[in-house]
Amino acid sequence: MTNKLYDTSLSLLTDLYQVTMAYAYWKSETAEKEAVFNLYFRKNPFSGGFTIACGLANVIGYIDNFGFSKKDLRYLGSLTGNDEKPLFEPAFLAYLAKLKLTCSVDAMPEGTVAFPNEPLVRVRGPILQCQLLETPLLNLINFESLIATKAARLRLVAQSDTVLEFGLRRAQGVDGGMTASRAAYIGGCDGTSNVLAGKLYDIPVRGTHAHSWVMAFADEQQAFDAYAQALPNNVTLLVDTYDTLQGVRHAIETGRKLEQQGHTLAGIRLDSGDLAYLSIEARKLLDEAGFQDTAIVASNDLDETIIGSLKQQGAAITVWGVGTKLVTAFDQPALGGVYKLAALKDTETGQWSYKMKLSEQAIKISTPGIQQVRRFRDERGFMSDMVYNTEEEARMDGDVTMIDPLDFTKRRRFEATQSYEDLLVPIFDAGKCVYELPDIHSVRARVQAQLAGLHPGVKRFVNPHTYPVGLEKQLHELKTALILAIREGNQ
Amino acid sequence: MTNKLYDTSLSLLTDLYQVTMAYAYWKSETAEKEAVFNLYFRKNPFSGGFTIACGLANVIGYIDNFGFSKKDLRYLGSLTGNDEKPLFEPAFLAYLAKLKLTCSVDAMPEGTVAFPNEPLVRVRGPILQCQLLETPLLNLINFESLIATKAARLRLVAQSDTVLEFGLRRAQGVDGGMTASRAAYIGGCDGTSNVLAGKLYDIPVRGTHAHSWVMAFADEQQAFDAYAQALPNNVTLLVDTYDTLQGVRHAIETGRKLEQQGHTLAGIRLDSGDLAYLSIEARKLLDEAGFQDTAIVASNDLDETIIGSLKQQGAAITVWGVGTKLVTAFDQPALGGVYKLAALKDTETGQWSYKMKLSEQAIKISTPGIQQVRRFRDERGFMSDMVYNTEEEARMDGDVTMIDPLDFTKRRRFEATQSYEDLLVPIFDAGKCVYELPDIHSVRARVQAQLAGLHPGVKRFVNPHTYPVGLEKQLHELKTALILAIREGNQ
Repeated sequence: MTNKLYDTSLSLLTDLYQVTMAYAYWKSETAEKEAVFNLYFRKNPFSGGFTIACGLANVIGYIDNFGFSKKDLRYLGSLTGNDEKPLFEPAFLAYLAKLKLTCSVDAMPEGTVAFPNEPLVRVRGPILQCQLLETPLLNLINFESLIATKAARLRLVAQSDTVLEFGLRRAQGVDGGMTASRAAYIGGCDGTSNVLAGKLYDIPVRGTHAHSWVMAFADEQQAFDAYAQALPNNVTLLVDTYDTLQGVRHAIETGRKLEQQGHTLAGIRLDSGDLAYLSIEARKLLDEAGFQDTAIVASNDLDETIIGSLKQQGAAITVWGVGTKLVTAFDQPALGGVYKLAALKDTETGQWSYKMKLSEQAIKISTPGIQQVRRFRDERGFMSDMVYNTEEEARMDGDVTMIDPLDFTKRRRFEATQSYEDLLVPIFDAGKCVYELPDIHSVRARVQAQLAGLHPGVKRFVNPHTYPVGLEKQLHELKTALILAIREGNQ
Repeated sequence: MTNKLYDTSLSLLTDLYQVTMAYAYWKSETAEKEAVFNLYFRKNPFSGGFTIACGLANVIGYIDNFGFSKKDLRYLGSLTGNDEKPLFEPAFLAYLAKLKLTCSVDAMPEGTVAFPNEPLVRVRGPILQCQLLETPLLNLINFESLIATKAARLRLVAQSDTVLEFGLRRAQGVDGGMTASRAAYIGGCDGTSNVLAGKLYDIPVRGTHAHSWVMAFADEQQAFDAYAQALPNNVTLLVDTYDTLQGVRHAIETGRKLEQQGHTLAGIRLDSGDLAYLSIEARKLLDEAGFQDTAIVASNDLDETIIGSLKQQGAAITVWGVGTKLVTAFDQPALGGVYKLAALKDTETGQWSYKMKLSEQAIKISTPGIQQVRRFRDERGFMSDMVYNTEEEARMDGDVTMIDPLDFTKRRRFEATQSYEDLLVPIFDAGKCVYELPDIHSVRARVQAQLAGLHPGVKRFVNPHTYPVGLEKQLHELKTALILAIREGNQ
């Protein structure tokens, strides 16, 4: 492609202000100051009760391959400010040329159920490096988590039915399609129409024919017969090119010929019209003709709401092809993930100085600290998540108290014996990858295992129950003290 | 990146059903039958009155580099049907290995104003090849046209203000970000924060610093001063980390120091709060301090509606940073472009057989023919567009009549002397590229020139006037005859 994206290093895939800040840190000799940033989101997408963390595999690939090429540096050297003079001096470009990432990264494994205000990724290292990673990490985590969550919702509503992702043609660019296919499979889809995603990500691919196939023949029966003759082991016939129920009769006719040759009519597909009515009528025709095992596939702008409604209406559909609404996350096409500075080490004292961003809106106030998420569970599943500052872990022996970040009078106490899991695991240690990526099928299985740990109320679509996420008491106190100090100082 | 997308041929970037249909054409020895497909959309996005055609540059790159690699073919060879036997026989894979695209492609140049039911791209060639191109062409054209249109709307509302695209972190994947930056610039943005897009596509890049910069210092004044010292020729200070108007005062203080050194405070940026109120107050403070030339930049979930409202409220903002809402086309994240078979040549007679897809909904009925779009204009601008069948052009001498496709009693007559332009231009002739791509700045200029040709009513956001697009009389008659024949045959 002349889309030169694919021939190039991706280290410039960042916002210019990351580079100008990097330069300003370098100029002020604070580039190596150790910082901690947390990547988190503030609201579950789709008015839902949960989010599926996804995108880490691409983050690992990005960090592993980080490094500025000569072309990158030449480009940065060509940028000018408002006086037409260069933005960056050559010594800085020389510094970037030698830059190797030495950050430590901890993150939730892909497929983990995540909630608002929990770090999905925590980056610790020289502030210049942390800053350069902000934009690509947000890009990669925001989108895949959004799509994996959408797919998980489709899986929930489709129950044991098959869900296929058919969205490539409406996806937001090449990578919008490729990445969506990966995240959709992880979230719970059974396959994709996207052949390249099938090849590169080991996802089952599915598909048979379009309306154009039928239109290219003198009549529908000829078209169906010709397709079945060519691919007798992959026959799902699209029946709505002219008249749907007539199309079903033609498909049955083709199915009879297939059976005579020892093959089966795998399915018929409906792509327009009243899917509830047509599927029920088609099912009758198929059953009467002895095609009880022929599946009815449906497509046409489906999403979790429409599938839920069709199932309620008794639609005889067992395979759902979902495209646009899934791969673009149509009803909310972006997850608003953010990446906030939470601590900075004083070079002289070696002490952490905790950082936060104030806001008039409580929901937009960030939380300081080197955060970890502790998920408590009992035999029924997940009980609640507690964000804590790892620097205080030593003082958390015995019982712990968790405080609601939006209402400090709401508290929960856990005994020292309560079972738990800490969700962030080491991914990079001082620039070296220490994490073994699970294969995509294990990640997909993890999503279902995680969802099984959630109370059904959290998973419902309308007014879901809010899963409890709180701050460990010492972190709460640290945050409160910081807010008061900043407000008093009114810097 | 371990995202292996970037190491691979993109010829499998298509739906599986394109490959199974290709196989079935090949098996039935009709793969080389000459076909014509039209790519078009049915509705302008965002309830608007126009669409900007975009994405052709990537289409050209895709076609130029088309070809199956050995790995691609090995993958296809590994696919099995419901009897676990291979889907495709080796001779077909050998055919694909040698396949060179020989299609002819005609398309609207990027930056052309387009309307529903007009072909943006027309592909003519062996049906097998046309079919393989369907999905990638739709992917590339749908997304870029959507974003270019969104950007054109932002440009309309922002009038002579600067509009910057800041969306990478919320874009749908790497390419979702890269492609959006390109299309946004073409549509009318003045620059992007995306450094890689700047480098690869020659788009101006812009950006200064984030909240984290301010938080990394003991106080805001220190942070501003340090930034200004490092990059004195690129100082736009983000003033809302703690208290916005206090932040403006700190920025003024830094601005004074900058002036003493012969530099200027280029701008301040507001990223939260009541942007109307704060910008007016900030403007007063800046003006009183003698900083009349310092720009006020605003960001924070902006779109054309919010910008329009802020301007109505008298907000003192002259630079608009637009992110999520632009790069994901948040309120309508997909353009529903389709690609329909319109004609098929009879191998024996050499005659075209015209094709269309019926539907219960008139809007979903496709139009047959080898289509071209004729745009009539007078001295005031564009009058109307007429879709015609190039096979009938010889019979169109003299006056022409155009018929509304949804109401055949609405007709318009154009004299032979009326000036016009045919919008589809040759891009590939029998597989060979015959089109010289204009540079991105010319494409961007074309958008503004095209918009200038539209009546203001077509460009307004609320209930825009419908620009007239009709069918040439003979094409209308062909379509009517075909519908009746199909309905009568009820195939």
